[in-house]
Amino acid sequence: MIVVLKRIVTDEEKRDLIQMIEKMGLEVKDAGSENHGVLGLVGDTTKVDITHIEAQHVVDKVMKVQEPYKLASRTFQPMDTVIDIGGHKIGGDNLTIIGGPCSVESEEQIMHIAREVKAAGGHLLRGGAFKPRTSPYSFQGLGEEGLKFLKKAKAETGLPIITEAMSIEEFDLIEQYADIIQIGARNMQNFALLKHAGRSSKPICLKRGMSATIEEFLMSAEYIMASGNPNVILCERGIRTFESYTRNTLDLAVVSAIKELSHLPILIDPSHATGRWQLVEPVSRAAVAIGAHGLMIEVHNDPEHALSDGQQSLKPERFTKLVKIVEKIHQIV
Amino acid sequence: MIVVLKRIVTDEEKRDLIQMIEKMGLEVKDAGSENHGVLGLVGDTTKVDITHIEAQHVVDKVMKVQEPYKLASRTFQPMDTVIDIGGHKIGGDNLTIIGGPCSVESEEQIMHIAREVKAAGGHLLRGGAFKPRTSPYSFQGLGEEGLKFLKKAKAETGLPIITEAMSIEEFDLIEQYADIIQIGARNMQNFALLKHAGRSSKPICLKRGMSATIEEFLMSAEYIMASGNPNVILCERGIRTFESYTRNTLDLAVVSAIKELSHLPILIDPSHATGRWQLVEPVSRAAVAIGAHGLMIEVHNDPEHALSDGQQSLKPERFTKLVKIVEKIHQIV
Amino acid sequence: MIVVLKRIVTDEEKRDLIQMIEKMGLEVKDAGSENHGVLGLVGDTTKVDITHIEAQHVVDKVMKVQEPYKLASRTFQPMDTVIDIGGHKIGGDNLTIIGGPCSVESEEQIMHIAREVKAAGGHLLRGGAFKPRTSPYSFQGLGEEGLKFLKKAKAETGLPIITEAMSIEEFDLIEQYADIIQIGARNMQNFALLKHAGRSSKPICLKRGMSATIEEFLMSAEYIMASGNPNVILCERGIRTFESYTRNTLDLAVVSAIKELSHLPILIDPSHATGRWQLVEPVSRAAVAIGAHGLMIEVHNDPEHALSDGQQSLKPERFTKLVKIVEKIHQIV
Amino acid sequence: MIVVLKRIVTDEEKRDLIQMIEKMGLEVKDAGSENHGVLGLVGDTTKVDITHIEAQHVVDKVMKVQEPYKLASRTFQPMDTVIDIGGHKIGGDNLTIIGGPCSVESEEQIMHIAREVKAAGGHLLRGGAFKPRTSPYSFQGLGEEGLKFLKKAKAETGLPIITEAMSIEEFDLIEQYADIIQIGARNMQNFALLKHAGRSSKPICLKRGMSATIEEFLMSAEYIMASGNPNVILCERGIRTFESYTRNTLDLAVVSAIKELSHLPILIDPSHATGRWQLVEPVSRAAVAIGAHGLMIEVHNDPEHALSDGQQSLKPERFTKLVKIVEKIHQIV
Repeated sequence: MIVVLKRIVTDEEKRDLIQMIEKMGLEVKDAGSENHGVLGLVGDTTKVDITHIEAQHVVDKVMKVQEPYKLASRTFQPMDTVIDIGGHKIGGDNLTIIGGPCSVESEEQIMHIAREVKAAGGHLLRGGAFKPRTSPYSFQGLGEEGLKFLKKAKAETGLPIITEAMSIEEFDLIEQYADIIQIGARNMQNFALLKHAGRSSKPICLKRGMSATIEEFLMSAEYIMASGNPNVILCERGIRTFESYTRNTLDLAVVSAIKELSHLPILIDPSHATGRWQLVEPVSRAAVAIGAHGLMIEVHNDPEHALSDGQQSLKPERFTKLVKIVEKIHQIV
Repeated sequence: MIVVLKRIVTDEEKRDLIQMIEKMGLEVKDAGSENHGVLGLVGDTTKVDITHIEAQHVVDKVMKVQEPYKLASRTFQPMDTVIDIGGHKIGGDNLTIIGGPCSVESEEQIMHIAREVKAAGGHLLRGGAFKPRTSPYSFQGLGEEGLKFLKKAKAETGLPIITEAMSIEEFDLIEQYADIIQIGARNMQNFALLKHAGRSSKPICLKRGMSATIEEFLMSAEYIMASGNPNVILCERGIRTFESYTRNTLDLAVVSAIKELSHLPILIDPSHATGRWQLVEPVSRAAVAIGAHGLMIEVHNDPEHALSDGQQSLKPERFTKLVKIVEKIHQIV
Repeated sequence: MIVVLKRIVTDEEKRDLIQMIEKMGLEVKDAGSENHGVLGLVGDTTKVDITHIEAQHVVDKVMKVQEPYKLASRTFQPMDTVIDIGGHKIGGDNLTIIGGPCSVESEEQIMHIAREVKAAGGHLLRGGAFKPRTSPYSFQGLGEEGLKFLKKAKAETGLPIITEAMSIEEFDLIEQYADIIQIGARNMQNFALLKHAGRSSKPICLKRGMSATIEEFLMSAEYIMASGNPNVILCERGIRTFESYTRNTLDLAVVSAIKELSHLPILIDPSHATGRWQLVEPVSRAAVAIGAHGLMIEVHNDPEHALSDGQQSLKPERFTKLVKIVEKIHQIV
Repeated sequence: MIVVLKRIVTDEEKRDLIQMIEKMGLEVKDAGSENHGVLGLVGDTTKVDITHIEAQHVVDKVMKVQEPYKLASRTFQPMDTVIDIGGHKIGGDNLTIIGGPCSVESEEQIMHIAREVKAAGGHLLRGGAFKPRTSPYSFQGLGEEGLKFLKKAKAETGLPIITEAMSIEEFDLIEQYADIIQIGARNMQNFALLKHAGRSSKPICLKRGMSATIEEFLMSAEYIMASGNPNVILCERGIRTFESYTRNTLDLAVVSAIKELSHLPILIDPSHATGRWQLVEPVSRAAVAIGAHGLMIEVHNDPEHALSDGQQSLKPERFTKLVKIVEKIHQIV
């Protein structure tokens, strides 16, 4: 951590600040000139609250040198985290394809789609039972009934289940049904939910908030890990920018960034990232080409009658084609 | 709602689409040419799921004409909502000044600051007992003990209390202590919490998410109102942009926008918006000059030893000066 | 174009507005209800100035249905534009690889790199003689001397040359040396330069501004085309967002968007998009996988001594490896 | 400047880097630990090219401690720059009101508006003769004829003139007519134009680019100043964000930031910042309340027939009211 002092600081004020920092268990090195004080802080700064140092009246600004996360960091754990879900491995050199509808709408619908996802070569089944919707007047999901349908689909196809929890109550219910529990973009900094997820034995799929930095994304993973759950799977689903042609702007370079900074697996959700089914296949190709550990794709047998997100859902035949081409690309890269 | 069709659509496809829309209880008007189909949808479209229409294969795009919120809309309720908190009125022509520390740190600290806020002319006392922190290793608040200290501060000074709930569990506890319950920026789309807040009899202060559009902000207010609680106070605290000199970018025009679109009161939080105490007074002057209904300001007797956000907290004497000048400006505008 | 009226508009005011619009040569269709006026404007609206209609006091807002560009639009020209540069074709199904240093630094440097680019299978040579630098104190390029070195490199290797012009004066000079003239991101809306480029017989490579929407990007291409030059090559180099891990955020979905909206070729510049050489190969793989028509890559024989952008330049051996892998991907997609 | 080394760096590599930096005339201080190298660079770093250091293979990242601008910096010149325009002073404690149409449309129009601006208490007249328009099909301004009309308006009212130049050619022409020459947001990094403006004896009004950081904004001012022209007036006109209710998002805190970092005057343009005339007065109040040195306002006698930007233009009577209220606020703050 680097502390830049204000221009006009007395020797005594500087000495006081150094003493204060040393009391925090850090070593202080002088990295500035006579005219402009700059201090280097050496030691474990992950637990230092930057705002505390910024609040000192002689301090101009504070800059981080090290990442503020530890358990999620590749420095801490050099080897890739690989998570085993009923025999299928997520992370490392494996490519994971997750398919399924935005919302579970009926037993018939989810059974039909699950079979198609399985036949196409998908590894996990997604499907929302509790839906985060911008409008209180939109379809909010089938609730526990939806979870029961997912369980039946798993029983028949063998596909493990991933589904989203939006609150602690839902989490405890979903834990009984799902193989992976998803925390959505809007809850990426729902710290109460993150801590709760950290006490679960089930793997967590954490989606990046739509305006979260990569550092904040990994800090939210750190929340889960610091509460005891090491099995976190990251998922990028696009960030919010001024561009409105696509629903969000997919920040694909995040894959390379995460692989450098962390050992956790990183998936891409091309359906939410683009909001348009026509873009799902091209973006999926790009995601696998850049090195993503997997894809989470919305698949629907009848998008025109879907209760949500039909505009970004692929029909099974297109999904099948997508799986084939991304597997070819995966073999090359 | 306007539906733009793709270029190559047969008469039959167009007829089918119109029938489908009419079945939703809407009237369809033709607003396009022979070469390019454009349909105007007339009727109550607040409950129409746009993604459903976008999913139709003949549809190119859908554009909203009306706002998707109702209870929060000024069209629905032309008169300003004014909320009475122990005799003090929030909204309309009133100016509300809320002061207090980021976190409640001790009984002594909150009592001291409460007296100063009262003496300076503040109307409500803020102070966090449960703190949303980016890092799991940062101070997380005193919890219920903090609430008890706030209660004592209220008992002595008479200042009503506003404090934040991050989960349903915390909400139920806080409800017993606070006069206004705050839902923070990171939870603006925590829909489970919004619905729960909608069943409370206490007013809710809803902060804008850091990448929320004005429409999404009002939709989250709608969630609370649609669940039964009409007493929502909005609060802008800066949005996230590429500029990093300030902690966030304060979108001050939101005040005029909200006053045009909605009847709900809108406050400004200059402390979080800027992240630097030097900017708090100038930004407060601007907020009142543009017509905000109030200010929420971080005040700390000893910012250099604050457990959080000291760098953006005002000392009591500066807060006193701020209150005086914004009241002068309030009289002019 | 859709015109939404304010809530309280008299029949007479509406009639006056309709007459005004009809005088502009457009047909007006009623797409609203009695309570809320909505008008559909039918005809060629590309030349209608939206602000003019928005300025009418009865108008609430105006929404575009059609794209405001014509010559650049795929509706206008369904077939891909393919541009022949000395026998190499840019656009259509071809993959174009452009390599070279950020700045031309010496004759020796550019000759050396040109040979490496040629040997690796590159099709064009890039190199800046006039450099847009944020600081007036940074290296500004060799000027005409640099152009002469580029000419020699072309003479030996046969590689056509692309280099940037920042002003009309520079443009006229560069036109004598270069095969493609680049207009950089910072000049994407330098309309004087765009018009001037439109009068040239040389193809123009137009880079997307760092906060330009796709529509504005195509409107700038339209400026060049409307002035008489149909040979425009688009190039995405990242947009500006809140994320600072990468120099810019690469909006890769733009490739699919441009291919849908326009017939012009679209290249990707992974060097500027990421600002880090480690990301150049993974991003290049993604760019080709999504369907980009080509790549523009910074190559330097000695990045540690480069006068600019060394941190994002590839050494020749890495560039060679990159060309091989992207060609494999190009064959699959 | 702080240089953070990669984790695995040998002593020899570190020694080589230090030698390289010392050759640049800088002193190097060690601010890191044995495990993690961090170097502090002391000396004049404004002329150091960061990308050059980033390109060294042992370097992880480089962080700036000092601002990269000098002439524009308050450290360099502590006293406010105050610019005299025909007796009216811009900067310091003065409030400057600039009014006039977006485009000069006719002699009659500009004469009429000039009289109104004068009568309302405005200090300068604005009006575009050369217009930067997104579409090549929109009205592009009257050119030199417009400049002649502006000259007549100045002759009658005594109001000095400010108008925009988009190219070097236009600049030389405009220099003969205008008192202040404006460089627009789209040309903020048109470095050829900035250098040319630096050789002029006329003050330059530089508008912030729509995605420019404050640092880049001041670096562009530095370009002008480094070329010899110290008279630069800054103008904020809104930045581009995801919010689309307003045309741009006004970053009003920039006023406080600029006043801290620089000695140059800073104006606010509420018309372009909001794009809606209803917001111009409230935003103007806020701008003056926060401490802006002035306002640049679009005024039109007949906005409904304006050839550009009528939707954001004030009628003279509203402008008169605005001037009165902002002058009252200016006296308080």
